[in-house]
Amino acid sequence: MKKISLILFLILNFLTAPAAVGVEAPISEATQECLECHAMTHPGIAEAWRTSRHSMITPKQAMTVKGLGLKVSAKSIPEDLQNTSVGCRECHTLRPKEHADTFDHNGYDIHVVVSPEDCATCHTQEMEQYSRNLMAHAYGNLVNNPVYQDLKQTIEGEPKRKNGKIVFNPADTATQEESCLYCHGTKLEKTGFETRDTALGEMEFPKIKGWPNQGVGRINLDGSRGACSSCHTRHTFSIEMARKPYTCKECHIGPDVPAFKVYETSKHGNIFSAMNKEWDFKPVPWTIGKDFTAPTCAACHISLLVNTNQELVLERTHQVSNRLSWRIFGLIYAHPHPKDPDTTLIRNKDGLPLPTGFNGEMASNYLIDDNERKARTQIMQAGCLNCHDSSWVRDHWLRYENTISKSNEAIMASTDIMLKIWKAGYACGIDSGCSPFDEAIEKNWANSWLFYANTIRFTSAMAGGGDYGVFADGRYQLSEQIQQLSDWYDLRSRMRSQEDFEKPR
Amino acid sequence: MKKISLILFLILNFLTAPAAVGVEAPISEATQECLECHAMTHPGIAEAWRTSRHSMITPKQAMTVKGLGLKVSAKSIPEDLQNTSVGCRECHTLRPKEHADTFDHNGYDIHVVVSPEDCATCHTQEMEQYSRNLMAHAYGNLVNNPVYQDLKQTIEGEPKRKNGKIVFNPADTATQEESCLYCHGTKLEKTGFETRDTALGEMEFPKIKGWPNQGVGRINLDGSRGACSSCHTRHTFSIEMARKPYTCKECHIGPDVPAFKVYETSKHGNIFSAMNKEWDFKPVPWTIGKDFTAPTCAACHISLLVNTNQELVLERTHQVSNRLSWRIFGLIYAHPHPKDPDTTLIRNKDGLPLPTGFNGEMASNYLIDDNERKARTQIMQAGCLNCHDSSWVRDHWLRYENTISKSNEAIMASTDIMLKIWKAGYACGIDSGCSPFDEAIEKNWANSWLFYANTIRFTSAMAGGGDYGVFADGRYQLSEQIQQLSDWYDLRSRMRSQEDFEKPR
Amino acid sequence: MKKISLILFLILNFLTAPAAVGVEAPISEATQECLECHAMTHPGIAEAWRTSRHSMITPKQAMTVKGLGLKVSAKSIPEDLQNTSVGCRECHTLRPKEHADTFDHNGYDIHVVVSPEDCATCHTQEMEQYSRNLMAHAYGNLVNNPVYQDLKQTIEGEPKRKNGKIVFNPADTATQEESCLYCHGTKLEKTGFETRDTALGEMEFPKIKGWPNQGVGRINLDGSRGACSSCHTRHTFSIEMARKPYTCKECHIGPDVPAFKVYETSKHGNIFSAMNKEWDFKPVPWTIGKDFTAPTCAACHISLLVNTNQELVLERTHQVSNRLSWRIFGLIYAHPHPKDPDTTLIRNKDGLPLPTGFNGEMASNYLIDDNERKARTQIMQAGCLNCHDSSWVRDHWLRYENTISKSNEAIMASTDIMLKIWKAGYACGIDSGCSPFDEAIEKNWANSWLFYANTIRFTSAMAGGGDYGVFADGRYQLSEQIQQLSDWYDLRSRMRSQEDFEKPR
Repeated sequence: MKKISLILFLILNFLTAPAAVGVEAPISEATQECLECHAMTHPGIAEAWRTSRHSMITPKQAMTVKGLGLKVSAKSIPEDLQNTSVGCRECHTLRPKEHADTFDHNGYDIHVVVSPEDCATCHTQEMEQYSRNLMAHAYGNLVNNPVYQDLKQTIEGEPKRKNGKIVFNPADTATQEESCLYCHGTKLEKTGFETRDTALGEMEFPKIKGWPNQGVGRINLDGSRGACSSCHTRHTFSIEMARKPYTCKECHIGPDVPAFKVYETSKHGNIFSAMNKEWDFKPVPWTIGKDFTAPTCAACHISLLVNTNQELVLERTHQVSNRLSWRIFGLIYAHPHPKDPDTTLIRNKDGLPLPTGFNGEMASNYLIDDNERKARTQIMQAGCLNCHDSSWVRDHWLRYENTISKSNEAIMASTDIMLKIWKAGYACGIDSGCSPFDEAIEKNWANSWLFYANTIRFTSAMAGGGDYGVFADGRYQLSEQIQQLSDWYDLRSRMRSQEDFEKPR
Repeated sequence: MKKISLILFLILNFLTAPAAVGVEAPISEATQECLECHAMTHPGIAEAWRTSRHSMITPKQAMTVKGLGLKVSAKSIPEDLQNTSVGCRECHTLRPKEHADTFDHNGYDIHVVVSPEDCATCHTQEMEQYSRNLMAHAYGNLVNNPVYQDLKQTIEGEPKRKNGKIVFNPADTATQEESCLYCHGTKLEKTGFETRDTALGEMEFPKIKGWPNQGVGRINLDGSRGACSSCHTRHTFSIEMARKPYTCKECHIGPDVPAFKVYETSKHGNIFSAMNKEWDFKPVPWTIGKDFTAPTCAACHISLLVNTNQELVLERTHQVSNRLSWRIFGLIYAHPHPKDPDTTLIRNKDGLPLPTGFNGEMASNYLIDDNERKARTQIMQAGCLNCHDSSWVRDHWLRYENTISKSNEAIMASTDIMLKIWKAGYACGIDSGCSPFDEAIEKNWANSWLFYANTIRFTSAMAGGGDYGVFADGRYQLSEQIQQLSDWYDLRSRMRSQEDFEKPR
Repeated sequence: MKKISLILFLILNFLTAPAAVGVEAPISEATQECLECHAMTHPGIAEAWRTSRHSMITPKQAMTVKGLGLKVSAKSIPEDLQNTSVGCRECHTLRPKEHADTFDHNGYDIHVVVSPEDCATCHTQEMEQYSRNLMAHAYGNLVNNPVYQDLKQTIEGEPKRKNGKIVFNPADTATQEESCLYCHGTKLEKTGFETRDTALGEMEFPKIKGWPNQGVGRINLDGSRGACSSCHTRHTFSIEMARKPYTCKECHIGPDVPAFKVYETSKHGNIFSAMNKEWDFKPVPWTIGKDFTAPTCAACHISLLVNTNQELVLERTHQVSNRLSWRIFGLIYAHPHPKDPDTTLIRNKDGLPLPTGFNGEMASNYLIDDNERKARTQIMQAGCLNCHDSSWVRDHWLRYENTISKSNEAIMASTDIMLKIWKAGYACGIDSGCSPFDEAIEKNWANSWLFYANTIRFTSAMAGGGDYGVFADGRYQLSEQIQQLSDWYDLRSRMRSQEDFEKPR
């Protein structure tokens, strides 16, 4: 009997091995031609693709999947793409007239940068959802908002001391592309052509400004927004990788958005770290409790989830705001999610393009209302309820919303001191036509809402409590920062009262 | 011959597969009844339990294990629990009269919160040991110590500026539960009943204040202390998870107790990270060099260890102080471990409930003596000696105890400046009836002992040296902090000497 | 047919199992004798060795490997070492007269500390390369450079307040060994003999000052430099461990050299974290795209790499500077790599042993020239080009070199303020015969180049962009630090202008 079990065990093992996916998908002639050179010149890329699902299945085969397992959301796919694997040609020659970087390459109209609009040929719904995602607008939302631009310049700009003060000259393009725009995405532009030496002789290629970049809000050469490769790393486009939290970590690790740090330290993160080597990250739909036993970032925010009875728990969404009621990233206060992914449209009561006023007043017209907040909360909670009873979930949420409110109040205390400092003229603020970020004390104030209040709220959201909510960029540091603002104001007030200031050289 | 080796290899593989644990353990009728609904309403929990050892073995079977592999430490187990798996009913209906949250649920007396006293039905010794563990007292030790309460309030309290100074109003309950008490544990209280809509109609449930929580010192509804689920995460209670360092990380990651960060960066942590996928985290006892090749947190502090000759190296303990001679968590200096896990009993020379005086004097009456320290050191070192010779271990310990002493001296230098500041009246200290934590400069001082000296000692303890001992919250930052205290004192002294202070508006 | 595939699958599995390495290597009589006791007294070490390649193959067998897979680089190996596994005797009795710690141990001349010169018996080329590695000189480069010694002392020294200023008395030996020298390496010295109680009675052993230590620049008892065990952890000396980034993390994690943090957050690090459980870390040579799909630290800096066509991509080097054009670790500016691994020889224009002047001028005579920089860049890029086209690689490098230049400019702005502060006498600098690191404001300045500019450059180098380049010890903190320097200078200037300073008590 043991022997039979053994055979069964092995067969099971075999059946669940990844090799089971149709390894026989034919390669198109054109792609075959690409590979003849590129497997030599860029063997790493070729090999990555060879191990990808894209190389193992044709769109036609993929479309035969019934039910929730269907990954191709296009209603129909052009005839000439249906019966070959999704290779070089299939992506890099799509919609040639739309792409400014299309060039003739050995007789093919190739473009370098594949865009979400290209991917939409098969993954239509995902592209549509993503286009309404805040992330798709990450470039414009940063670059076209004068307040954020000012903050950006006081971070990455070139510091010079001038008249006893630090001024920040605009950062050069390369610096911008490497700092904020690395995550937010660059604006790609074809600036001409150039001839390069290659292993196969001289060839002409387009020159692309802003390249390389895989930022989530990249402006592509066909005018579309975003880069699927931000999360679905080329050229395997592995769903396993996208579902693991390390992908999100690329941009969500710093004190401003410490999602990964907090997650990794939470109970859920602990379970993930300890047990994920036995999880299955590939099935679609993804079964709670069977394929995985604690949520990753993707599970809560994006993935299509079912329970062990194969009932739908959460629909897949690439518009992550679908499940988000609050935007806990304080600007400068946490606030209900913006209605429109283009946040440059927002105006607060002072006319600034910010979702909240300095006094905490919400720019409510531009933010979702209570009903929408409740609806989104309910969607998100559907996932939680698979492992937690309704009182657990409700009481967790009560604490979370309380923390949003209390952390906002703390930022009011912080901002109140900053306003006093500006009013007293100890620093030059926005009302006096100055940047509110270019003096040391202003950065102190920014720390309070940009780092510490954010960290506290991320911790609360993930029920991660503990150190990130308290000692690691949490309440301890927020309190300390407010005390320092007060101490600085105090000191300057005392000095000012002596009324014998002289400017330093 | 190759074929025979192959068969042998596979059989071995099969025999060591986890499925070998008696999968046939019968489920009690009551548990079966629970599962009929709960596998539908909370499939994640049901599935977690189904993959747990608790579902695969009966207590009677578990008690037949001879020698060190025995996991059930109770001398006897009630008849009616012996022959079924340890399921819903077996834990959630134990000792109904002791639990304030017991309620009638479809004819059963159910309680929501399973406590260590419940677990003690089988795991008697573990509960007894844990009750003497400092962690079991984490709630009271924090909440009933006025000095710590003061520190707590200046961290999580509501900051307001008042008369030119930041005051911290007490934090509301939800904030407290989410910050310090997340790790320390909440005090659970049944406040009444409520009716909730469920998938199966309206039902009545107890309302529990302080829930959810899995803090190590949680005060349970039967009056017991602690939560086994802090480390043995429900409902798999996996020993693998408890033995991996990610579990400890949930509360030991911040700059106050950076155990995980330091461990992960140490030689031991490197070996763990690189090689643990091939380790076996499940065997009891746990064999050094065979099951694992470098210690995790559990290996040094808790687990039952044997060597490759199956000789006992370390007895299992859930009272981690058994192996700890020093408490390196400075309050405000590192000190010999407290005798009693209830640290509110301690009084230092100034009558404060602190293990050391501000001048470094130990509250020796309340701390273990040299003999006990030596005995505990010897216990801990028994583990080290499996891979390190006696001179290595001894010389590591010499450095470690030297660092305890030197870091304490540095904190004396830091505290000395703080005392000068208080004495000069530049800040209002404990002698003047003020909080020693509510001013900016006081947080600077607190950083020195709460973060930097602690980090240095954790690094030393784990021979992790390198960056955490120097540049990452280590000696660099400690020195810088002391320099800043001195600089601040200097500045205020100069201003004070001008004797023309005016209070700011 | 399925059955045949199954058998094939299993056989494949079997053939690639690590057990395939000649498990039959005979153990020398002497090693057998060692093991008789040491397998009892230090079973962890014995077991580690038993699972190592050293126990499974004889040097003679190892030398039969043809082509790039050859790991033994010695032209010939002493006759008496050829035919047994590489065990206790084979390493710990080599070159007895060279080792100051050689002692008689049961009739054998044993030395405790195995050195690179011992390992060179088989791994000659690796030792030779490593001896030219900056790391091999890490002890002397730190200890024999008066400027670094001064910085070191203001970090790990004993802080005392004296005449209103913090002074740092030299750290004691144990503290030094545990902080900077943990990574840099200690200088080992035999100070005599001692008698110890062992499981087998009293025995005499050498006493070794500076032991234990595995720092990369350890000065050994045979006068050689370095410790192979820094990365090839005893006693498995696993190539898998050395190739994983956790090994490098032991010393490259803090804000001064945040290589691991940045890597882990980069696209490459994401791929590693998500997918490495399926990679093969053991093959020599190591095939890009097949054995691994994203580089680890070792892949870029050390390993022997081939492409999927088995063509050589990068030669193995243990002199990591072979592939490094820039030294991005700012001292105080980033600079071309030093020509000589002994950096104490360097003199900048002010005669200081620093690769750059305070004004940014390079000590060019001591640094590699443009041609050498270009040659090294080309070597490194050979790896990149396997997965990235030449414009991608070139444009990444343009950004990287731009960031070196821009971050250096920012440090000039920072240093300029520091120089003003020194000139004004608000702090006492190197020109006035004082330490440039022992005052609070000087540490502020040091933060700017030692932490923030370094972090920015590491991020740039690894194209990790995002948070470490901006919000996590990146440009945000660099800007803030410069603003604070300016703010401090401003304040002191105003106070000084009142000309009524008095020294504090």
